[in-house]
Amino acid sequence: MSPLPPKSPAESAVTMTQMILPPDANPLNAAFGGKVMEWIDVAGGIAAQRHCRRVVVTASMDDLHFHVPIRVGWIVTLDARVLAAFHTSMEVGVTVTAENPLTGEQHLATSALLTFVALDEQGRKTAVPPLSLSSPAETAAFKEAEARRAERLARKAHSSHWQKVLGRG
Amino acid sequence: MSPLPPKSPAESAVTMTQMILPPDANPLNAAFGGKVMEWIDVAGGIAAQRHCRRVVVTASMDDLHFHVPIRVGWIVTLDARVLAAFHTSMEVGVTVTAENPLTGEQHLATSALLTFVALDEQGRKTAVPPLSLSSPAETAAFKEAEARRAERLARKAHSSHWQKVLGRG
Amino acid sequence: MSPLPPKSPAESAVTMTQMILPPDANPLNAAFGGKVMEWIDVAGGIAAQRHCRRVVVTASMDDLHFHVPIRVGWIVTLDARVLAAFHTSMEVGVTVTAENPLTGEQHLATSALLTFVALDEQGRKTAVPPLSLSSPAETAAFKEAEARRAERLARKAHSSHWQKVLGRG
Amino acid sequence: MSPLPPKSPAESAVTMTQMILPPDANPLNAAFGGKVMEWIDVAGGIAAQRHCRRVVVTASMDDLHFHVPIRVGWIVTLDARVLAAFHTSMEVGVTVTAENPLTGEQHLATSALLTFVALDEQGRKTAVPPLSLSSPAETAAFKEAEARRAERLARKAHSSHWQKVLGRG
Amino acid sequence: MSPLPPKSPAESAVTMTQMILPPDANPLNAAFGGKVMEWIDVAGGIAAQRHCRRVVVTASMDDLHFHVPIRVGWIVTLDARVLAAFHTSMEVGVTVTAENPLTGEQHLATSALLTFVALDEQGRKTAVPPLSLSSPAETAAFKEAEARRAERLARKAHSSHWQKVLGRG
Amino acid sequence: MSPLPPKSPAESAVTMTQMILPPDANPLNAAFGGKVMEWIDVAGGIAAQRHCRRVVVTASMDDLHFHVPIRVGWIVTLDARVLAAFHTSMEVGVTVTAENPLTGEQHLATSALLTFVALDEQGRKTAVPPLSLSSPAETAAFKEAEARRAERLARKAHSSHWQKVLGRG
Repeated sequence: MSPLPPKSPAESAVTMTQMILPPDANPLNAAFGGKVMEWIDVAGGIAAQRHCRRVVVTASMDDLHFHVPIRVGWIVTLDARVLAAFHTSMEVGVTVTAENPLTGEQHLATSALLTFVALDEQGRKTAVPPLSLSSPAETAAFKEAEARRAERLARKAHSSHWQKVLGRG
Repeated sequence: MSPLPPKSPAESAVTMTQMILPPDANPLNAAFGGKVMEWIDVAGGIAAQRHCRRVVVTASMDDLHFHVPIRVGWIVTLDARVLAAFHTSMEVGVTVTAENPLTGEQHLATSALLTFVALDEQGRKTAVPPLSLSSPAETAAFKEAEARRAERLARKAHSSHWQKVLGRG
Repeated sequence: MSPLPPKSPAESAVTMTQMILPPDANPLNAAFGGKVMEWIDVAGGIAAQRHCRRVVVTASMDDLHFHVPIRVGWIVTLDARVLAAFHTSMEVGVTVTAENPLTGEQHLATSALLTFVALDEQGRKTAVPPLSLSSPAETAAFKEAEARRAERLARKAHSSHWQKVLGRG
Repeated sequence: MSPLPPKSPAESAVTMTQMILPPDANPLNAAFGGKVMEWIDVAGGIAAQRHCRRVVVTASMDDLHFHVPIRVGWIVTLDARVLAAFHTSMEVGVTVTAENPLTGEQHLATSALLTFVALDEQGRKTAVPPLSLSSPAETAAFKEAEARRAERLARKAHSSHWQKVLGRG
Repeated sequence: MSPLPPKSPAESAVTMTQMILPPDANPLNAAFGGKVMEWIDVAGGIAAQRHCRRVVVTASMDDLHFHVPIRVGWIVTLDARVLAAFHTSMEVGVTVTAENPLTGEQHLATSALLTFVALDEQGRKTAVPPLSLSSPAETAAFKEAEARRAERLARKAHSSHWQKVLGRG
Repeated sequence: MSPLPPKSPAESAVTMTQMILPPDANPLNAAFGGKVMEWIDVAGGIAAQRHCRRVVVTASMDDLHFHVPIRVGWIVTLDARVLAAFHTSMEVGVTVTAENPLTGEQHLATSALLTFVALDEQGRKTAVPPLSLSSPAETAAFKEAEARRAERLARKAHSSHWQKVLGRG
């Protein structure tokens, strides 16, 4: 089978604007963490799907950080971009920027790294296009992603003690 | 101020049973990743809140792994347990067990580690009770959590290249 | 066909922990009755399904009482347990305990009794395992359930006047 | 305080039409019981509120019967009507009629009886207008409601065994 | 094929009562416009479906006006009625009346006009019954609808400049 | 009071990417019209709010056309742009582009025009910045918007017959 042609991160980039409505709030009147995670998962999955043009499923999420709370009535912009493409998986970075609608002031509210796996029509893992890197920042981000992947696989290899505490080791 | 009395992980443990209903599904007819993340965040937050009896907010999530897909109509059981208590934060482990309702067969579907911060009435970080450890598994889990926390703080210290790719560095 | 082996109430017991979030609230800032009913139906249905390992459908609900309101931000724990197994149906009791997250104080907020029917692959009613009773409380609960069932069938037998008021008698 | 003027059941009658959409379905592709209960609670509450023009809360539900399943894509009509007004509470009957949208064929799918309590501005129970009865069916329905109320209070008076089985007696 | 027998607007009229609950609110604590649009679409679609007894899809919406805001906790009544039937499409008018639950005071809050198209089993446009008009108001409304339809087709015929501004012309 | 400085349409442009998930579907397995309207309202409202940096409420919607259905699992991109700013109101155009995730093929699925009104802290209508036009397409779109506004006000001036059919004239 001939190799898939490489694609740049810009070709699959996603911008998702949302407004924090009352049903998205936690009891503190700020955006509920679980709702933001849901949007991050959707935005990241669309970027991965645009890169490989395959059905994708979320495999893992890491380094999700909630930097500042987001108020009800504020605007959020999620930016998702493929950082690395491996054989059948892709790492996608997602940032969530909060915007005060009355002043236009913005700040980074949340960020996360997700891994998605591409599936073929039979639901088996399938190859994804390589990522073409065209700037030093993209190359640096790709190297970071490779290092994280090695760490992730190492951590999964030895059984975690913490799951034994829950009786699921 | 006198120190808070220690509490065991069992005192704040959470069991949350859910059924995967059609609105929780992705287009593959399996549980949508974002929905499962939302439940993980709620179950973990309840465990943290039961440990410190304070308002808590999600600070970060790591090592979220989707091991196997969960079908619509299946039962899921989320177990959440405090693994470590630091000065004002707590690490909570959450496992999601999928159960075939017609056979009773179960397997670990998803797992994740979350950090929550306790807030006082003015919204400032506030001290949480220490965790009393009563088994070798609990002690091992606590040591793992301490090591992860050191790694997490180290990663946050040096600016990540990947956010520059999205123009948010 | 050989009879199904009996199962104890403990084998199918369900614990479902939830947090009252703003979208679950009524205009009084307490948990919306309809949302609590939805959770009761799911928790009860999971208990029934674990007892018979069949698809189940809700047939009826009785004695649903809202004892005290539940505030937004509070934790609720639903406990569901099979009280009686008849030929193709099961009665399940569900209690909803509200917990103040800041004090740990708990009280019974809601309780209800539901009847579920087991269906086979063709959607026809099918036999469920008998319930093995191992304590005086379980036996007393079973007898109560039998009496309620007789009353329920009696009430259904004679056409209710109230439906005529709505033009649906 | 002068007594409140009586009101007829017709003055507070409610008609609520809904369509069963995919998120309202259970895994069998029929309307999810919990969703129908939620609509019943809202329709009944509106009838009670129109009768007393006060804030109302659901106190109890009884004789909820699911007669036939309702398919996704079908139309449902909920009719709610006050059957009896007591000192500070009202009993409301709700029927749910399912309609095949392609044939117009209708049948009674679900019915339930709910009790609502009226609250004043301080959240205390407050008097509701008496119900003026103008037909033999309305009078018969009122007498049935009075009998049910007596039974309900009798059942609540002696502690139920079934709650002891769940450790909540 | 013999022509379909005509039907009156009253035969397909829809009344949908809803209560504005907290998840339906915008950050100003009034009903969120998008939620009201959703109910308008459902109510209008049910009226169209009852007229033609076919699957229908929304083709367009016009003259949606939000006259006054609707508060959380208020009751809304949507009335939908077929105003005109063309060959394969129907125009439906929907009004949304807001009711203060504590006073019974009502006012028109929102109104809209929608066009629905009838589809056969293969998803092709299919004929709908003519509308029998039995009052001067119905005849006047039908003539208005015919005029609006001509305008609508005229506007669609020449490409709109505004879509070029968005790069979608 | 000094006049507000003009702003260009590009300064307030909104891109909102969404995925059609099963709960967003109608019984035909395509995106439910009401859900798409909800997203259009939010995207349009964010553009209006970014233009005036005020709280805004939806006043009207026109020329909403569903050109083609959108399948579950497809990606949609909403683009919203301010077309005209009047004294206290703004007209916003929104297009919805559907994208087949497996091929990347795109087509215009839905479009709509909305009017939003700006409110000050007391909820009174307040002035919005003028729109600076920098291309022939933007100027043409502005002129179209002015003409539509005149027609809209004319239509609102004479009472509509159709509302009399519903008994709400």
